[in-house]
Amino acid sequence: MVDNKIYPEIRTKGRILMGPGPSNVHPRVLRALSAPVIGHLDKEFLDIMNLTKDLLAKTFMTSNDFTIPISGTGSAGMETALVNFIEPGDKVLICINGLFGERMADIVQRCGGDLEVIQGEWGKIIEPDEIEKALRMRPADIVGIVHAETSTGVLQPIKPVGEITKKYGALLVVDAVTSLGGAPVRVDEDGMDVVYSGTQKCLSCPPGLAPITVNKRAEERLASRKNKVQSWYLDITMLRSYWGKERFYHHTAPINMVYALYESLRIIHEEGLEARFARHILHSNALKAGLTAMGLELFAQSGYQAPMLNSVKIPEGVDDAGVRKYLLTNYGLEIGGGLGPIKGRIWRIGLMGHSCTRENVMLVLASLEEALADQGFHVERGAGVAAAREAYKVA
Amino acid sequence: MVDNKIYPEIRTKGRILMGPGPSNVHPRVLRALSAPVIGHLDKEFLDIMNLTKDLLAKTFMTSNDFTIPISGTGSAGMETALVNFIEPGDKVLICINGLFGERMADIVQRCGGDLEVIQGEWGKIIEPDEIEKALRMRPADIVGIVHAETSTGVLQPIKPVGEITKKYGALLVVDAVTSLGGAPVRVDEDGMDVVYSGTQKCLSCPPGLAPITVNKRAEERLASRKNKVQSWYLDITMLRSYWGKERFYHHTAPINMVYALYESLRIIHEEGLEARFARHILHSNALKAGLTAMGLELFAQSGYQAPMLNSVKIPEGVDDAGVRKYLLTNYGLEIGGGLGPIKGRIWRIGLMGHSCTRENVMLVLASLEEALADQGFHVERGAGVAAAREAYKVA
Repeated sequence: MVDNKIYPEIRTKGRILMGPGPSNVHPRVLRALSAPVIGHLDKEFLDIMNLTKDLLAKTFMTSNDFTIPISGTGSAGMETALVNFIEPGDKVLICINGLFGERMADIVQRCGGDLEVIQGEWGKIIEPDEIEKALRMRPADIVGIVHAETSTGVLQPIKPVGEITKKYGALLVVDAVTSLGGAPVRVDEDGMDVVYSGTQKCLSCPPGLAPITVNKRAEERLASRKNKVQSWYLDITMLRSYWGKERFYHHTAPINMVYALYESLRIIHEEGLEARFARHILHSNALKAGLTAMGLELFAQSGYQAPMLNSVKIPEGVDDAGVRKYLLTNYGLEIGGGLGPIKGRIWRIGLMGHSCTRENVMLVLASLEEALADQGFHVERGAGVAAAREAYKVA
Repeated sequence: MVDNKIYPEIRTKGRILMGPGPSNVHPRVLRALSAPVIGHLDKEFLDIMNLTKDLLAKTFMTSNDFTIPISGTGSAGMETALVNFIEPGDKVLICINGLFGERMADIVQRCGGDLEVIQGEWGKIIEPDEIEKALRMRPADIVGIVHAETSTGVLQPIKPVGEITKKYGALLVVDAVTSLGGAPVRVDEDGMDVVYSGTQKCLSCPPGLAPITVNKRAEERLASRKNKVQSWYLDITMLRSYWGKERFYHHTAPINMVYALYESLRIIHEEGLEARFARHILHSNALKAGLTAMGLELFAQSGYQAPMLNSVKIPEGVDDAGVRKYLLTNYGLEIGGGLGPIKGRIWRIGLMGHSCTRENVMLVLASLEEALADQGFHVERGAGVAAAREAYKVA
């Protein structure tokens, strides 16, 4: 009844994932993913939920009680983080310096928020002073900002923003989709009120869940809402009853994805957060040394480059898609192109979680040299790999 | 850094899942689930997306172009089916005869819909005449109804409802979470405009995705909206560009869950839809014969019992949780309890997809006899199993 020629079994051998996510996944995570399904209210599963919450809170470096994975991808996390805390007419300030800030602004409008934006430059951070200036001009109930902009590779310092939002009485909502598990996301220490992420970046778990954490201050805001949250599926007041002691049925959790997330978090804490952050910096520095030695120019603002997502300018005359296709075809290696206004202008080379290794750094430098040569762009032979090797020696 | 005693690896050996979902999953589906991750815009993945769409449309028995899995569980499917087609002030009629009708009504209010409900009885169908009466009194833009009510085990005839909604110019939104893949969901033939489902019932795939299909009539309604859809994540106008030819990036699809859904759909169409529906009826009839012979009374209205979810009244004096715990502890067998107003009054015995087998029917009858005896409720020895055996002979 089903033609195997038309509908063949999945035969992928996978890729070396060095794009903006998903990243490669440890075999242990795939093994956990394929454990037998059990019921969403089974004691055995409830225990796994509890342990997952615990490890997630450690990963967010928070004591927040409400720290769970939302049953959707990172973008569902973004929507959850906004829709629960914005009521029609609430004043919201969104910092935009890339695609994901723009997306936040879009969602704010769909919630009926009274939106103001700081329009920053793609590839640069938002200066904290700009935020303070904006809040002095017009107070806001909520400020939204992206920690690691996946579209540009910029890593935004959050601590000064947390101080400002606290001073002006605004809730701080932070997008940590790309940073969590790869760079410090110090939720409590840096004064973040609501933070969301995705599983497929530095957590190195397949895409499908969106970790989120909400502090007491934000929970109070939620409790004082006049209207119901506009999304039933993402309503934290109900999700809390399912993930909390009541175990009140809300929706059927994505059982196997929770298994996978749990295993990926175990792997993260076996390595240790600080060691993991250091690993991301180590390999990113080597990669950047190599790219620079090849005559390429980094895109993101110096001093604020996200170690897990290295953006580099495409040299004049080189065909973006041609190079990416070369790498994919000859090496099974995926890197990312640019999005929106910088489409065709940059590549985004991910070093996320399980993908962040010395072998990947060396391979991408060696294969990129080859792909560029194929495009007629001259790179001094071996310059990239040699510079990276040197960077590892010094480190 | 992580204590294996506190955070042990997942060691579940699984359960025999005969509750209201999730159902058991074919080993091939778990194998597909754990295939290596690839990028969400990788040609190899786009091909899998296309094939999944095709097989999903066959399963919905539709020629609708927009037939995709939403990246969330069944409830996200419900929200998608409502939030895209309701604008503030739209007149919506929801038929309620169980928990999931109530949930629809809740979501309608969160969309600003002008809600009217038909309050039916839990365990009975909604009479089509009631719907016609309601629409004659007050026309509606949208009518929502549940095909197989997971909370009661009632199977609602949809065809007459489709005729009425067409006559009165309303869009018909149907919840086929529990029915799809286990009973005919004839989207085109029965005049359904928007239909959603979940993966963890009769599709026998782990929970996490919500198949949905939207016909031209509903797409036109969507195109004529005055306001943006209030959910960014579930906005069909954008999902369409990602799943369609444009491949416009929206969110990162849950890659591995799509693998699993694809494999579960291949299995369904290897068996064939009609054979699969017949199998569900066969085993359900045997189960019902057995339960009745044991002196138990079926809960759902006679003639309208969903084959994949058999609800049975709990005899006077028998402890609901005690029996379920007995089955789980001694047989690793999960059946469901009641929800809402019928909590403690019924059990829900699922025969969904891969869980719908003769061995499961016999096991649940034999073990239930034992669990009831343990509670002091007398069942004639072997009566249930014998009656089921007889039913299989006759069939």
